[in-house]
Order: sequence, then C-alpha cells, then structure tokens
Amino acid sequence: MPTVYVTAPPPAADDLARTLVEERLAACVNRLTCHSTYRWEGEVHDDDEVVLLAKTTDERYEELVSRVVELHPYDVPCIERFDESHVLEAYATWVADEVR
Amino acid sequence: MPTVYVTAPPPAADDLARTLVEERLAACVNRLTCHSTYRWEGEVHDDDEVVLLAKTTDERYEELVSRVVELHPYDVPCIERFDESHVLEAYATWVADEVR
Amino acid sequence: MPTVYVTAPPPAADDLARTLVEERLAACVNRLTCHSTYRWEGEVHDDDEVVLLAKTTDERYEELVSRVVELHPYDVPCIERFDESHVLEAYATWVADEVR
Repeated sequence: MPTVYVTAPPPAADDLARTLVEERLAACVNRLTCHSTYRWEGEVHDDDEVVLLAKTTDERYEELVSRVVELHPYDVPCIERFDESHVLEAYATWVADEVR
Repeated sequence: MPTVYVTAPPPAADDLARTLVEERLAACVNRLTCHSTYRWEGEVHDDDEVVLLAKTTDERYEELVSRVVELHPYDVPCIERFDESHVLEAYATWVADEVR
Repeated sequence: MPTVYVTAPPPAADDLARTLVEERLAACVNRLTCHSTYRWEGEVHDDDEVVLLAKTTDERYEELVSRVVELHPYDVPCIERFDESHVLEAYATWVADEVR
C-alpha cells in the first residue's frame, strides 16, 4: 500500500491535497511544513515547502502520479513511493474503500 | 528495525508518545505537526493532526501496535510499519537497549 | 535511491542541511520541525528537534553518513536509510546530476 512523498510550495500543497482526495486518488493526505535546501542550476537555495504524504492503493498509484505531474507547479517535482512492510488491516481496508 | 507511522489528534499525540517510551515499546518518538485532508463517510475533511514516528524493534512491534490501538481515540487509526534498508549501528544498538 | 532520515537539534540541522548540499552529498534536504520523546540514561526526555530527509544516490550514501557522523553534535545520532519502491524518473535524474 503506497505512501507517496511529494514536496510542493505552500499554496499549491493545499490544492493538491484536496484534489487528490476529492478525485479519490488518495484516501488521506498529511501535509507537513518544511524548509528545503537544494541545488538548482549550480546555486544552493533555501525555500519553504510542504511535504505531502498521500495514502493510496497499488491500483490508484499511477493515476495519482500522473495527476500530480499535471497539477504541480514545478518542472521536476519530487514524487516518490514508499511501501510499508505492515499496516493495520482496518486502516488498509479504509484506504481501499475511499479510493474505489 | 521498524519506524511506525501513526497519526493522531494533537492532544492524544503527546500522551501516546510518552506512554510508548515510558512502557519501553519505543526508544524514541518524533512528533510532527500536520494538516490532514481525508474522506470520511463521503465528505472531504481537513484537520490538524500529528504524525508520530516511533522507533522500535522487531520484537516490540506487535506489542506497540496493540497498545496504540488500545489508547488511540480513532476507530480506524493509521498505523503503518516502514523498515529502513540501513541504519547506523550505534543507533540500532541504542534503540534495542532502550526497549529491552 | 536513498532518503536518509536524520534527527538533529535545531541549530545544527540548518548547518547540516547546507553542508550536505554544498558538498554535493545530497541534492535536497527537507527539514521538518518535531518534538521528540525518548529515553536516555534511564529518564524520559522531551526535546525540540528537526527531522532531516536528505535525497541522495547509492554512490553517495556512505560518504553522506560519514559526514553526518562527523558533523553531528550527538554521540549516537539517528541515521536511517529508506529506499523508495518507485520514483519519478525526471526527479531521480535530477538528484543524480546534482550529487555528481
């Protein structure tokens, strides 16, 4: 069951989270404020961002990624999938039901 | 060595973290403030929550899950296990010692 | 492609993030404020910390760990590696380019 790790600028993050849940591509999105340090075109930058952790299913994963790429303001967004090694069964059932 | 990802409402999160460490079910719990967007009974909701990341061992994992289910205010809490592919050995030893 | 999970006290966290990116050991570091509850020398403690999530490559991982151990103010820092099961290809290419 994938947790999808996406970073986005603060205004875009709220819209992304809402769209993914409204369109049943994720059952839940946790949004965590962060500061990001990164290298872009040779320079080191520091920005306020948001980490989104979207809970979805195998079946919805690819559609979720396509939608994030489409909506995201960056040319090269961070979109990574992490799979848990165990999950509370009732929670997995809830996620599956909400994205069906 | 499991990192257990749990979300909880802010007042419950502090108590959960303290109990897990006091009862030696986790060596450490990191609590991160978040905003959560999710679907519940057909409606999209937005709430303040906390992500708890609890560091424990294989041996303690099931006991930790049972205790979180027991203490958690939600009927269907998010409890997911993620296993690292590498860990600093001194840190792994410390976690193991603190939950023994 | 590793995401390295490190916790550090707030003043050290900013320096660590900047150094890892400046020295091309990570392409990006997300820093998230957290509260940590842990057991140390028999007592339960509560502290403000920062979770650093550093994006790097297989090739750079060991060098990054050595540098964090060297710079970190703790004797036993939390340094854990998590590998994604999928990543947007353009993002993986960007990370690889920035740490080359």
